[in-house]
Amino acid sequence: MKSYRKELWFNTETRRAFINITAKIEECLRESGIKEGLLLCNAMHITSSVFINDDEPGLHRDFERFLEKLAPEKPYEQYDHNGFEDNADAHLKRTIMGREVVVAITDGKLDFGPWEQIFYGEFDGKRPKRVLVKIIGE
Amino acid sequence: MKSYRKELWFNTETRRAFINITAKIEECLRESGIKEGLLLCNAMHITSSVFINDDEPGLHRDFERFLEKLAPEKPYEQYDHNGFEDNADAHLKRTIMGREVVVAITDGKLDFGPWEQIFYGEFDGKRPKRVLVKIIGE
Amino acid sequence: MKSYRKELWFNTETRRAFINITAKIEECLRESGIKEGLLLCNAMHITSSVFINDDEPGLHRDFERFLEKLAPEKPYEQYDHNGFEDNADAHLKRTIMGREVVVAITDGKLDFGPWEQIFYGEFDGKRPKRVLVKIIGE
Repeated sequence: MKSYRKELWFNTETRRAFINITAKIEECLRESGIKEGLLLCNAMHITSSVFINDDEPGLHRDFERFLEKLAPEKPYEQYDHNGFEDNADAHLKRTIMGREVVVAITDGKLDFGPWEQIFYGEFDGKRPKRVLVKIIGE
Repeated sequence: MKSYRKELWFNTETRRAFINITAKIEECLRESGIKEGLLLCNAMHITSSVFINDDEPGLHRDFERFLEKLAPEKPYEQYDHNGFEDNADAHLKRTIMGREVVVAITDGKLDFGPWEQIFYGEFDGKRPKRVLVKIIGE
Repeated sequence: MKSYRKELWFNTETRRAFINITAKIEECLRESGIKEGLLLCNAMHITSSVFINDDEPGLHRDFERFLEKLAPEKPYEQYDHNGFEDNADAHLKRTIMGREVVVAITDGKLDFGPWEQIFYGEFDGKRPKRVLVKIIGE
């Protein structure tokens, strides 16, 4: 069994952002030399997310509105977690979007349907944060 | 390390549907001959879901209402994604329900609690769509 | 390839509870002797959850309010699933929080960011329920 590990770093200019990281993950996979196995990609922070969906800007605005409806950022005082911090909404938003994805590796490729793309979802940005890529297989 | 891969195809008659796919997954597992490992089952489309819950029709109606409350299908114009398409709500519903499940394989069986069943959740059906089953182990 | 399996049991005094199980999972990992691989931790019941977030009581109260807003426990009659049972809300709450986490194992440790902690989320407690830990690797 082979295994591979890499950290990817992000520092967004806005509090919230969606970044397509598919090409970076494919680069990790090539580097690993693994042809058959499973790839785990997860946010290493608890106010961000890794998820799979469509690379379509209209949909990303819909996600933003959807998340703001379910877990609004403001008023900050509505959350017990906010005191020294103001990011309770980011913890809730990341919960809806998910921490991680697990992807099948087949013939050295991400085994994806036609529109699947991997995104980093940032909900409390403007500082350096990490994503972990771990691949096991042969 | 052994690995196994299979696609399952679905074409629902309604826009939304929940289909119990546990028996199909168990058939894949038998076919794989894998006794110890991990099984990944994921929707290959970004408007459908694979999730684990109860096979109870009342609960499935509750899921339908719950998802319609959080991400209503109509009016279509409420979503920026809808223009050529009308399925923005399906992208959001699938996000809540999840893309994938990872299941432990022990002694050649899905290592499940008493009521765990695997479902395909369709949110934009009436066309052929796929689920991926990938198993790694020994 | 090595594999390891363990069940952890919980019996909460309240209907809903969040329990930090990180130390228990680390104990499983030590017991397994696995240094590189993937760890799956999932609820074996469909009204509870395993998720990763912050060990901060204020945030847990925020989660409770958030979940009660999206899928309120009462009135019980609002759910078709409730008749012999009263736990439809628990099925929905677990769906939002997630069934499982997959964690990278590197150098014999949970490969975590600075604040990641694993929680058991109970939404229909006061009875013995199980979590599964499965580790594969080398």
